[in-house]
Amino acid sequence: MTPGKFITLEGIDGAGKSTHLRWLEKELRSRGKTIIVTREPGGTPLGEALRELLLDDNGTMHAETEALLMFAARREHLDKVILPALARGDWVISDRFTDASFAYQGGGRGLAMQKLDSLEQWVQGEFQPDLTLYFDVMVEVGRQRINAIKPPDRFEKEQDAFFRQVRDAYLERAHKFPRRIVVIDANQPLEEVKESLDKIISSICIC
Amino acid sequence: MTPGKFITLEGIDGAGKSTHLRWLEKELRSRGKTIIVTREPGGTPLGEALRELLLDDNGTMHAETEALLMFAARREHLDKVILPALARGDWVISDRFTDASFAYQGGGRGLAMQKLDSLEQWVQGEFQPDLTLYFDVMVEVGRQRINAIKPPDRFEKEQDAFFRQVRDAYLERAHKFPRRIVVIDANQPLEEVKESLDKIISSICIC
Ligand SMILES: Nc1ncnc2c1ncn2[C@@H]1O[C@H](COP(=O)(O)OP(=O)(O)O)[C@@H](O)[C@H]1O
Ligand SMILES: Nc1ncnc2c1ncn2[C@@H]1O[C@H](COP(=O)(O)OP(=O)(O)O)[C@@H](O)[C@H]1O
Ligand SMILES: [Mg+2]
Ligand SMILES: [Mg+2]
Repeated sequence: MTPGKFITLEGIDGAGKSTHLRWLEKELRSRGKTIIVTREPGGTPLGEALRELLLDDNGTMHAETEALLMFAARREHLDKVILPALARGDWVISDRFTDASFAYQGGGRGLAMQKLDSLEQWVQGEFQPDLTLYFDVMVEVGRQRINAIKPPDRFEKEQDAFFRQVRDAYLERAHKFPRRIVVIDANQPLEEVKESLDKIISSICIC
Repeated sequence: MTPGKFITLEGIDGAGKSTHLRWLEKELRSRGKTIIVTREPGGTPLGEALRELLLDDNGTMHAETEALLMFAARREHLDKVILPALARGDWVISDRFTDASFAYQGGGRGLAMQKLDSLEQWVQGEFQPDLTLYFDVMVEVGRQRINAIKPPDRFEKEQDAFFRQVRDAYLERAHKFPRRIVVIDANQPLEEVKESLDKIISSICIC
């Protein structure tokens, strides 16, 4: 049995993660893979309950509490969904994973990256996604796309300055892990983003 | 302004924490202290929501998830309740605190103590209670007292073997931190436990 692969999608809101996830799933299925689609925070009943607590908070939650809750949900997600699926040989695609903690709690809320490194190590040890697709979009572009579809939740209501810090942190992560994280220019029209993705998928499906 | 003191009560279920907390509160109030009574997990709206998730779990939650949730609730508890109260000069009495994580997630569920040390450091740095009253009771005695009053919750339903490990871990903590943790023999009749407590309180209220 070939071992499964773990692919994560990252980017600020409106970058196109959900849109391209559906397409990516279809493409990989058509190539004969068994695909598990999941998301963070969430992915398990406990994780979804924590997601509610995180998104409903009125903005007073300490950044460290937020980080601990994200990693608690992640620990459960790994234990109940991600690791068992990979062990079966399935492919797992997650709409967000640990890079999002570095981007949002680190970049956005200003938590020291070293504190996040230590939680990551605590929860994951050396475990990392096989591939991370980072959809990079300008903050204004992402916001305009989101505003067009639904009322903003707590994270989405943050100011543009916050999202610029999140984006900068994502770009730093991509710079730090160039072999794992592929940056996709998501400011482009949908069709062009798909073409970029298509090339990446063709290359990963060779191995 | 004299700084406030932080007192924590520890022990397995049925040890007498709640009973003696009420008495301790009354005693300290009568000595002119402003007292904040709180508990873990809980103590804040988020903490109480997490307490529900922890106690309602059907037993599948990973021990590391449990530990992360406990420390997430604790981070918020420190930020919103404990540290502000101490800064005002109030005294804080908490029904359980970090020693309980070492006893339950460490001793009970077998999580490595060193992983708990690292979370404690992450959340609290060097912050510790000024005094911890550990009510030591034999597992059978605690269970009989509890069974007499209400149906058991998830933690209480654990087998006696589990609670023996919890108790052993508490005793180890007390041995490791003899200046902070006072062991009270809670197998004794109520009146005698109160007398022991009375002596301890008289001694701490001198300083
Ligand atoms: N490259 C793109 N060009 C134009 N619109 C896009 C593009 N990518 C996504 N969108 C649109 O933006 C909105 C948000 O996309 P979505 O996939 O939900 O983003 P995310 O999941 O990253 O928040 C959707 O209406 C989607 O159709
Ligand atoms: N030393 C004691 N002797 C006899 N009964 C006790 C003693 N301490 C507590 N109890 C009783 O045991 C029950 C559990 O006590 P409680 O204070 O709720 O324990 P905890 O909060 O540690 O679980 C209560 O009914 C209480 O009155
Ligand atoms: Mg989405
Ligand atoms: Mg009690």
